[in-house]
Amino acid sequence: MILALKALIALGALPAAVLSLWPIPKSINAGTTFLTLSPQFSIDITFQSPPADLLSAVETAHYYLANDNLERLVVGRGAYDVQDVQSAKALSSLKLSLAEGAQVNSISAESVKAIGTRSEDYQLDIPADGSAATLTANSTLGLFRGMTTFSQFWYQYDDKVYMVSAPITIHDSPAYPFRGFMLDTARNYFPPADIIRTLDAMSWVKLNVFHWHVTDSQSFPLEVGEFPELAQKGAYSSSAVYTASDVQNITTYAASIGIDVMLEIDTPGHTTSIGASHPEYIACNQASPWSTYANEPPAGQLRFTDPAVVNFTTNLFSAVAKTLPSLMVSTGGDELNIQCYTDDAQTQAELTSSGLTLEEALSEFTQSTHGALIAEGKTPVVWEEMVLDHNVTLANDTIVMVWISSADAAAVADKGYRLVQGPSDYFYLDCGAGEWIGDTPEAMSWCDPFKSWQKAYTFDPLANLTDSQKPLVIGGEQLLWTEQSSPNNLDSIVWPRAAASAEVFWTGATGPSGAPLNVTEALPRLHDVRFRMEQRGVKAIVLQPLWCALRPNACDVNA
Amino acid sequence: MILALKALIALGALPAAVLSLWPIPKSINAGTTFLTLSPQFSIDITFQSPPADLLSAVETAHYYLANDNLERLVVGRGAYDVQDVQSAKALSSLKLSLAEGAQVNSISAESVKAIGTRSEDYQLDIPADGSAATLTANSTLGLFRGMTTFSQFWYQYDDKVYMVSAPITIHDSPAYPFRGFMLDTARNYFPPADIIRTLDAMSWVKLNVFHWHVTDSQSFPLEVGEFPELAQKGAYSSSAVYTASDVQNITTYAASIGIDVMLEIDTPGHTTSIGASHPEYIACNQASPWSTYANEPPAGQLRFTDPAVVNFTTNLFSAVAKTLPSLMVSTGGDELNIQCYTDDAQTQAELTSSGLTLEEALSEFTQSTHGALIAEGKTPVVWEEMVLDHNVTLANDTIVMVWISSADAAAVADKGYRLVQGPSDYFYLDCGAGEWIGDTPEAMSWCDPFKSWQKAYTFDPLANLTDSQKPLVIGGEQLLWTEQSSPNNLDSIVWPRAAASAEVFWTGATGPSGAPLNVTEALPRLHDVRFRMEQRGVKAIVLQPLWCALRPNACDVNA
Repeated sequence: MILALKALIALGALPAAVLSLWPIPKSINAGTTFLTLSPQFSIDITFQSPPADLLSAVETAHYYLANDNLERLVVGRGAYDVQDVQSAKALSSLKLSLAEGAQVNSISAESVKAIGTRSEDYQLDIPADGSAATLTANSTLGLFRGMTTFSQFWYQYDDKVYMVSAPITIHDSPAYPFRGFMLDTARNYFPPADIIRTLDAMSWVKLNVFHWHVTDSQSFPLEVGEFPELAQKGAYSSSAVYTASDVQNITTYAASIGIDVMLEIDTPGHTTSIGASHPEYIACNQASPWSTYANEPPAGQLRFTDPAVVNFTTNLFSAVAKTLPSLMVSTGGDELNIQCYTDDAQTQAELTSSGLTLEEALSEFTQSTHGALIAEGKTPVVWEEMVLDHNVTLANDTIVMVWISSADAAAVADKGYRLVQGPSDYFYLDCGAGEWIGDTPEAMSWCDPFKSWQKAYTFDPLANLTDSQKPLVIGGEQLLWTEQSSPNNLDSIVWPRAAASAEVFWTGATGPSGAPLNVTEALPRLHDVRFRMEQRGVKAIVLQPLWCALRPNACDVNA
Repeated sequence: MILALKALIALGALPAAVLSLWPIPKSINAGTTFLTLSPQFSIDITFQSPPADLLSAVETAHYYLANDNLERLVVGRGAYDVQDVQSAKALSSLKLSLAEGAQVNSISAESVKAIGTRSEDYQLDIPADGSAATLTANSTLGLFRGMTTFSQFWYQYDDKVYMVSAPITIHDSPAYPFRGFMLDTARNYFPPADIIRTLDAMSWVKLNVFHWHVTDSQSFPLEVGEFPELAQKGAYSSSAVYTASDVQNITTYAASIGIDVMLEIDTPGHTTSIGASHPEYIACNQASPWSTYANEPPAGQLRFTDPAVVNFTTNLFSAVAKTLPSLMVSTGGDELNIQCYTDDAQTQAELTSSGLTLEEALSEFTQSTHGALIAEGKTPVVWEEMVLDHNVTLANDTIVMVWISSADAAAVADKGYRLVQGPSDYFYLDCGAGEWIGDTPEAMSWCDPFKSWQKAYTFDPLANLTDSQKPLVIGGEQLLWTEQSSPNNLDSIVWPRAAASAEVFWTGATGPSGAPLNVTEALPRLHDVRFRMEQRGVKAIVLQPLWCALRPNACDVNA
């Protein structure tokens, strides 16, 4: 029967069931047998002393299975499947096991291990005969990833929860260890609930690093225990602050669903908001014309030649680092404006006095802030300019974020650093929405055009790199700068687009068929994960008319 | 004191209060005196037998005044104004009067009068001494517009509602009678609540025509009493249907807030969804490749050479027209694909039999459908191709929608028709979000780039027209085609961008200062109306970082 159906599908007589998985596993064998979820379905942990966050993840998986209420994306929706569902066998359990000898750690502990040392692999088997499904991994984090995959198979109609593609055998593991999403919470503020919802959506597509660009020149919404004045004066308002408790809730929740929160306090540029409480630390503070002193208004950068500023910033990073479970902390380092310092009498006097060049002083500043992070056991992270435009001495294991252009990865790799791919020409979610700088009737956004999900999806993480450089690419991320974003459009500007890189960096260059990833195969699956996100409360944008979403490939250009 | 403050403002010593009005009135004199809203504030109607919808509008105005809770967009927000508010006089009433001899009709009746015959003018005076404010108009619709303006002046902080720019004298009237917004509810469906919310936002910026592109090839979500099969089989689902009651609620509510609902059933192209119930009426029904037969999938057009189809379509328009208060109904007429008919044996046989050319048959079909509308007292509306690409005989008072390019208005005017400006190169809100057609990894949207609010705002309705043609321009509209939109992003893709044309067509070429409208002056006011929309529950997109919104012009390119 399976073979006959497959033959009919191959002949085009029946629609092939879309494998409703995103990212698509490295290796998968799927059938065409329907299976319902037994009303008594249970997820059974077969080992002793499971950690609390795994128990919580099991609860969440049950919740999604019961509440996704997603009808399958076929013409007729759920009604199309009624007959097959009636005669389907029922699955009564999913058994979770750890591989022999694997340690029973919490998901949270596994999620913040050093990048490259986490085990996210899993094996999932769903027999077609209703006998127990099994999920095996080397870590609770792997089990979490496997449960995420498991929950994507199920549709609902008429009080039945069912899947359409048993038997299933999956062997899965990520191609890259760093699969991120960056959110800027300084241009405009996002309440913690928006971040939590974003973390949930990230976990559904196996993204595992939340790069939190928490502060910038426009506002400083981060409460730091030792420096309460920073948020008191630098935040947009007292209600637009991430309290210490908020940060703890966010990092704790993130880790429990497989996500490492990499905080960034951008320095020494992008710091005007520090001037609200410490004006003496800021050169070219709100100077005019801003365009002489900064890439966007307001101008203002830390006077890193001032020992008091070095001391302050070092202590700030030290204080913040102590509060974070992640081993990665970013000191930023993008878009440093030299004119700001050239025109700053205090900086010039300090350079004269110290006998250092500006670049030497920048290097000393960076070594001091990075030293504080390293002393706390953290790995520093910087934007690409710190190694491409400045002669800053960095620890060998520093992680460098490529952002200006996809062409820059090779130059970073040439310097020998590990790198994360976040190139604006593929991964900037804010591009293409018009210019936000005032008095510019005809201008478009600086990084026009819009970066479609297709564009992001076709990104090659290893382009232009030599074989010896390729291992330096630890992953990538899509990014949302929020000059034109707020909670009102967060979901719709991010999802499902940010799922594109999630698959690029999880599945890698080729899909389970061995063929390169391609947008045509991907689209029906991306519809599916988008509709599922919507059912779970994330207001993801639609990709096509519903007419197309119900008819895979019928709206392709040559269909 | 007023003069002194004004001098300080002129010297740049104090920020000028932004006139929080959108669209900006034709003529306005404003001061800098603060005025609070008395807790006993009342809106008093000074004439007999006010209509129910005017009483309802008064209630709504009270509601906004009490619940907008908008703090002023200055550094420090509401706290900045505390001292001025403490010493401010209180306004205790706004008196509504009709000009002598004016008829007391309902707002609803005034809103659906023939385009060009409505009176939306009003005069608003708010003295600085706390004595009663007065609002005078020639119609209840004018009073409604004036109350909309009145409600935009008020901020809230610390239990005080106040304004910052008394005394106010406004003489206002629209430059163009047709100020629309078009929503496509066929590519993806929008529940009535989303439409109602959109109508509210439209009314806040004095837009007065909701162009409802209700059906298209992808779905037919409109219940028509005499033709229930159309929605039963052509809608996406039974829950994605506008019932007769929904349509009545929407048109009734719209009229009560000054909006005329112009329904469009696009014909003879864009009608595949009619084929779900009447396959015999559709040529090239879902034919492949769709690109040979249609501008987007699925292909399918009415066989207008078939007398049964002419009869059906004519009866359809007659039936629909009877349910609509508006005097304008659109029969569509865009993107007719000729190949579809060339390859359709039935069409070719019917042409041979009738001896007509395809164009002659199209003209007969159109005369029949338009005849049905005219018989119901309606004015037919068509897309520009009906007069530019086809030799269709139309009534002289037919309204033509320009959409393909702003360059096409002159050709339509050359034919002598009244026209509405909806050019894709300025007013298409869907452009620039990437290609939605599948299997197109590199493609952008057909009408790239994104049409920013600035682009829309710089549109000249009268460009390239002779003086004698200019009166043919009755207004314009921004449009949302919804291949990539759903309720999830409706507010953020439409607002505040659709307010741009609202000001272009209300205020006209020059603002109250006599200077041409310009984006630099407009931006702070657009921020203000955007924040007010947000307070009223419309999730409009942010235009800039909050830092910029609080500092008018500080983020201008040369600031």
